[in-house]
Amino acid sequence: MQKDKSTNLKVRLPALVFALEVLTVVLYALFVTYDDHSNALHQNNMTNHRENAVYQDYPFFADIQVMIFIGFGCLLSFFRHYGFGGIAFNFLTATFSIQWAILVQGFLNFYYDGKIHLGVINLINAEFACAVVLISFGAVLGKTSPVQLLIMALLEVPIFGVTEWIVVTYLKINDAGGSILIHLFACYFGLGVTFMLYRPDLNDGHPKEITSYYSDMLSVLGTLFLWVFWPSFNCALTLRGDDQHRAILHTFIGLSASTLTAFALSAMLSKNGKLSMADVQNVTLAGGVTVGASVDMMISPVAAYALGMLGGIACMLGYKYLSPFLARRLHVQDQCGIHNLHGLTGLISSLAAICAILLASEETYGPSLYQTFSYRAPIVGDSRLEELQKQIPGLEGGLGRTSQEQALYQVAALGSTIAIAIVGGVLTGFVLRQPYLASPNDHFCFDDQPYFNIPSDQTEMIKNEKEITLQHVN
Amino acid sequence: MQKDKSTNLKVRLPALVFALEVLTVVLYALFVTYDDHSNALHQNNMTNHRENAVYQDYPFFADIQVMIFIGFGCLLSFFRHYGFGGIAFNFLTATFSIQWAILVQGFLNFYYDGKIHLGVINLINAEFACAVVLISFGAVLGKTSPVQLLIMALLEVPIFGVTEWIVVTYLKINDAGGSILIHLFACYFGLGVTFMLYRPDLNDGHPKEITSYYSDMLSVLGTLFLWVFWPSFNCALTLRGDDQHRAILHTFIGLSASTLTAFALSAMLSKNGKLSMADVQNVTLAGGVTVGASVDMMISPVAAYALGMLGGIACMLGYKYLSPFLARRLHVQDQCGIHNLHGLTGLISSLAAICAILLASEETYGPSLYQTFSYRAPIVGDSRLEELQKQIPGLEGGLGRTSQEQALYQVAALGSTIAIAIVGGVLTGFVLRQPYLASPNDHFCFDDQPYFNIPSDQTEMIKNEKEITLQHVN
Amino acid sequence: MQKDKSTNLKVRLPALVFALEVLTVVLYALFVTYDDHSNALHQNNMTNHRENAVYQDYPFFADIQVMIFIGFGCLLSFFRHYGFGGIAFNFLTATFSIQWAILVQGFLNFYYDGKIHLGVINLINAEFACAVVLISFGAVLGKTSPVQLLIMALLEVPIFGVTEWIVVTYLKINDAGGSILIHLFACYFGLGVTFMLYRPDLNDGHPKEITSYYSDMLSVLGTLFLWVFWPSFNCALTLRGDDQHRAILHTFIGLSASTLTAFALSAMLSKNGKLSMADVQNVTLAGGVTVGASVDMMISPVAAYALGMLGGIACMLGYKYLSPFLARRLHVQDQCGIHNLHGLTGLISSLAAICAILLASEETYGPSLYQTFSYRAPIVGDSRLEELQKQIPGLEGGLGRTSQEQALYQVAALGSTIAIAIVGGVLTGFVLRQPYLASPNDHFCFDDQPYFNIPSDQTEMIKNEKEITLQHVN
Repeated sequence: MQKDKSTNLKVRLPALVFALEVLTVVLYALFVTYDDHSNALHQNNMTNHRENAVYQDYPFFADIQVMIFIGFGCLLSFFRHYGFGGIAFNFLTATFSIQWAILVQGFLNFYYDGKIHLGVINLINAEFACAVVLISFGAVLGKTSPVQLLIMALLEVPIFGVTEWIVVTYLKINDAGGSILIHLFACYFGLGVTFMLYRPDLNDGHPKEITSYYSDMLSVLGTLFLWVFWPSFNCALTLRGDDQHRAILHTFIGLSASTLTAFALSAMLSKNGKLSMADVQNVTLAGGVTVGASVDMMISPVAAYALGMLGGIACMLGYKYLSPFLARRLHVQDQCGIHNLHGLTGLISSLAAICAILLASEETYGPSLYQTFSYRAPIVGDSRLEELQKQIPGLEGGLGRTSQEQALYQVAALGSTIAIAIVGGVLTGFVLRQPYLASPNDHFCFDDQPYFNIPSDQTEMIKNEKEITLQHVN
Repeated sequence: MQKDKSTNLKVRLPALVFALEVLTVVLYALFVTYDDHSNALHQNNMTNHRENAVYQDYPFFADIQVMIFIGFGCLLSFFRHYGFGGIAFNFLTATFSIQWAILVQGFLNFYYDGKIHLGVINLINAEFACAVVLISFGAVLGKTSPVQLLIMALLEVPIFGVTEWIVVTYLKINDAGGSILIHLFACYFGLGVTFMLYRPDLNDGHPKEITSYYSDMLSVLGTLFLWVFWPSFNCALTLRGDDQHRAILHTFIGLSASTLTAFALSAMLSKNGKLSMADVQNVTLAGGVTVGASVDMMISPVAAYALGMLGGIACMLGYKYLSPFLARRLHVQDQCGIHNLHGLTGLISSLAAICAILLASEETYGPSLYQTFSYRAPIVGDSRLEELQKQIPGLEGGLGRTSQEQALYQVAALGSTIAIAIVGGVLTGFVLRQPYLASPNDHFCFDDQPYFNIPSDQTEMIKNEKEITLQHVN
Repeated sequence: MQKDKSTNLKVRLPALVFALEVLTVVLYALFVTYDDHSNALHQNNMTNHRENAVYQDYPFFADIQVMIFIGFGCLLSFFRHYGFGGIAFNFLTATFSIQWAILVQGFLNFYYDGKIHLGVINLINAEFACAVVLISFGAVLGKTSPVQLLIMALLEVPIFGVTEWIVVTYLKINDAGGSILIHLFACYFGLGVTFMLYRPDLNDGHPKEITSYYSDMLSVLGTLFLWVFWPSFNCALTLRGDDQHRAILHTFIGLSASTLTAFALSAMLSKNGKLSMADVQNVTLAGGVTVGASVDMMISPVAAYALGMLGGIACMLGYKYLSPFLARRLHVQDQCGIHNLHGLTGLISSLAAICAILLASEETYGPSLYQTFSYRAPIVGDSRLEELQKQIPGLEGGLGRTSQEQALYQVAALGSTIAIAIVGGVLTGFVLRQPYLASPNDHFCFDDQPYFNIPSDQTEMIKNEKEITLQHVN
């Protein structure tokens, strides 16, 4: 092992973190100020404190915080010897990603009068960018150092931010739950990264690629936190009122259907008719993604249920048959199977949304059609807009698109998101292959030992396991 | 062991789950649509999105989700070798129960114009039905297969739904926290089931009926989640405003009193003066049940405290003296002691509510007496109703009952709920005794092995334990 | 070991708890009633239920509940053999502290017409008092019996309550996040207690002063709950609207900065360049304290970031260099290092608030300057007050203080809080040294065995560890 490939963090990690912190401080100092709802100067005798945006946004923000830090953190701790790595590197990466996204998205979406204007709504948006990074992290879990993870976040957040900005500003698509922008982007970016970090010797398994009883319990606890709060994730940025109401219902129904399906298929497809905790930890969540792109639409509750079932089936079959194929043939080692949980399901969700868009009519939605599908509202100046505004006073002029036109825009967004994600992921993976980034060698993958001081009970356990293995060999 | 009694899930579980999913899809397709608050068509120029019911209901829904999936899930994972079963079967059973209750309660309570109308409020109601199933699950924990649990839910939800519908529609009782309808029903149903599944050989204990250090920690974590969010459970369906405010206060105070009592009695009644984690996990929660039936009334804070203490004492004495008696003499093996935590406490709560009802007067409640006790409002046409409506504009006509009459209705509800629960539980238990339901034999009770692929550290542990046991024998 | 020093809880714990419960019941019965928002009598035809204070307060209350019972509970469970003690004694102590604080703060702050008036707002205040006790508990973790902990709470709550009352009523300071009143008080009180409970033989370490892999995981889970909900803690008692919005933003930013700093310094200052979970568990939280005293002010986002970094650095250096010094030289054995996480950071926060107060001007705040800094509002009768009331209708008359004057009041509050805390802590420590309080001897520190019935896997583990130790010795 060359010195420059050492996993020692004593210099590398603080050097990188402090550089990033100084950068953050400088950018905050130069550019970040309060938005109208967090600025004391904007309060006057007309201000009703109850209408401050914080009361709309904070509950959803808090729920998503639980998902990011506790849900993902526990879920990623399933390896027997990499529990510290799972929960702590998730903590580190998420914290940095959110701060970095506040700045990147700030410049792209919240910048005026020479300043980024900051409120809790920015934090929710930044959490979505963070979720992107954490999903990609799943592809390389246990095979990357914290230095590499921070650099991945450093590169992924702006690539995601620009993609999001292009899609939202120019293509204007429906994707309330982020199935396209978040899940598909994160998935293909992560696959691009892991393709570049291909480790041929790990295709035959690794002795530490195992779980323990309590790592599995903690991991399923993470799943449950994600499951419980997923409706908040899918509805946080939808229109207030009935749209948000539907988003909650559909997400809950979709998750329920994928959960039942996951249990059924886990028993059915296992050799001995027993359930696997890995399925309970992952496949149960598929429905949250498949309902995502159409989550605020009038798709009907039964469609949400069917999407959940479909998601569960696709995700399960992916784990069983596609992941091994990707690893052996395409050199894409997808550690947590994000292509199953976020890729296949994201594709299903995108197609479902296109169907829902093509079927959407004033008959079903009433005039609020032009709010949920705002690009379909007549353009400013069109007399039909004025008529509609009599029914919905606040309605803004749109782009006058037909549903068929919109379907094409959705396809365009889908394609361009995946393309940018793959290219961005591959380039990022290339950067992560550089030396000095404390990457673990194959032997120390899925192992806390290179990065953490470990309690003696765990080191004893590792010693015992080695002895058992040696006895088996002899 | 006969083949038909095998615990292999490869065919049974998927066959049952897919049948249930198909049934659900058909019923959803035929009958389920959006309610006024989740339907886009109902939005017009009068709609204020902030007044959508979702903003009232969703926070409580989310809190109860945490209780159901994380609170119950962790709490039921206390067995050393049945942690996966505890948390995962809770997940499976809860998910199915809620979906099934949406349909059953939908037909009974939310059905008009040929459709079940769906909003988050239905989900809260369905979660209550789910809590019923999970409490009953406690009686047979570790002794039932997931197939049996799903069938139990399949039968219990409609029996509960009809009982609830009768009591709410015809008897019209006070039971905001569900001490009668939820806790007593669930308890006696579960006891009925476990009576039919009596396993005589388990009365002398089972070598796997033990906890481990970390299963106890996870279980108490579940208790804490239930404890923290219980006020949301008890207030979710009370009247908005001061009623809900009182429900929160009383639940918190009641739980505090039962917690202190639990610690005191745990040390006092143990042989060696040491605390038992089983008491910390269960008895602490008794106060949440004892305040339940009168939780929204003006019982005064001190009464909530006293009810919490009483609950803790009754629950503790039940664990110590009544549970062994029930198991040996009545063949009721109550695995988690639900008769102590939900039965005895439910009875205390019912009696307390009757006292509170008899004492309730306009002097204490003002005109809102006729809201909290709506059946006491004068009937439509009575001139006293019009007078009261001057003070409380929205007041609806009631049944003109006296408090004494109401006390009798409470007793009737109590008796009929318990009676239906016992009969329903016994019948359900009879069904669960049929072959092909993958029931574990005595040896494999409290054990994940029949149903899960287990990490090697746990199988090693089981092997070591056996060796230790053998050494002790030799 | 003398009999009176036994750790047997069979008599002591129930005797104390029941005495406290009887005291509570009597005081509740004599003095506690509902406040305007929880009293049914106060409802009339003008009441809008949506404006009941419960809807403002309950969400923050619930978040802080999670912090108190789950966050602290898990965080304090980091010892390998004292997990039950950590989570269960936290549960017991917190439950009693809140009930006791409801009464103590009730007499001081919510008492009129001969009664303590109770609403959810009282519970939030009581949770803050409870947080004080739990922070102090950190100083003596593993070295005190539950009897001692209850007596500590019994004494600390009133001493804190009176301090709070003096500071809030007479000195009138800015301290929204409680950096002075909560963190500094709790810290120096705890140090006073541990000074009196000095155990010279523990300065050279104790064989049970170790963690295990899963105790570390659970502990960091506790950290994450504290981290995620800390914004709710810091904003719960600030002014509604933009003040609360800023409190959330600053807390989140401060925590992010201290988290990144903690990871960087943990690697940098360790001998082998590896991360320590103790740092991840503690130092990450420093930013929540350092932003506390100025959390609602217009300090600018960059200042929150800088305060978070500063907090992380001070806390980390404290753990590394100051704690060992305090233990050896000053006989202050600060078990969890509360002086680093709450003391040093509290001092930084106090200084930052003084700077922010000195810099606060109408230019930055507009007329709402006189709300955030209410003591600066002109006194009643001053014509400037009337002018300002035109801009902010509800503005109340203040004390007409200048910012320089206020800075002195802040210093006075800082000094007096620390002074009372030290004296109170020393006196309380003196009481805790009395016999009959079930204090463990040195050998049984950091050990569940004196107080809990322990599952056999843990007792086996302890036996094995002893054997390993003996082998090493021989």
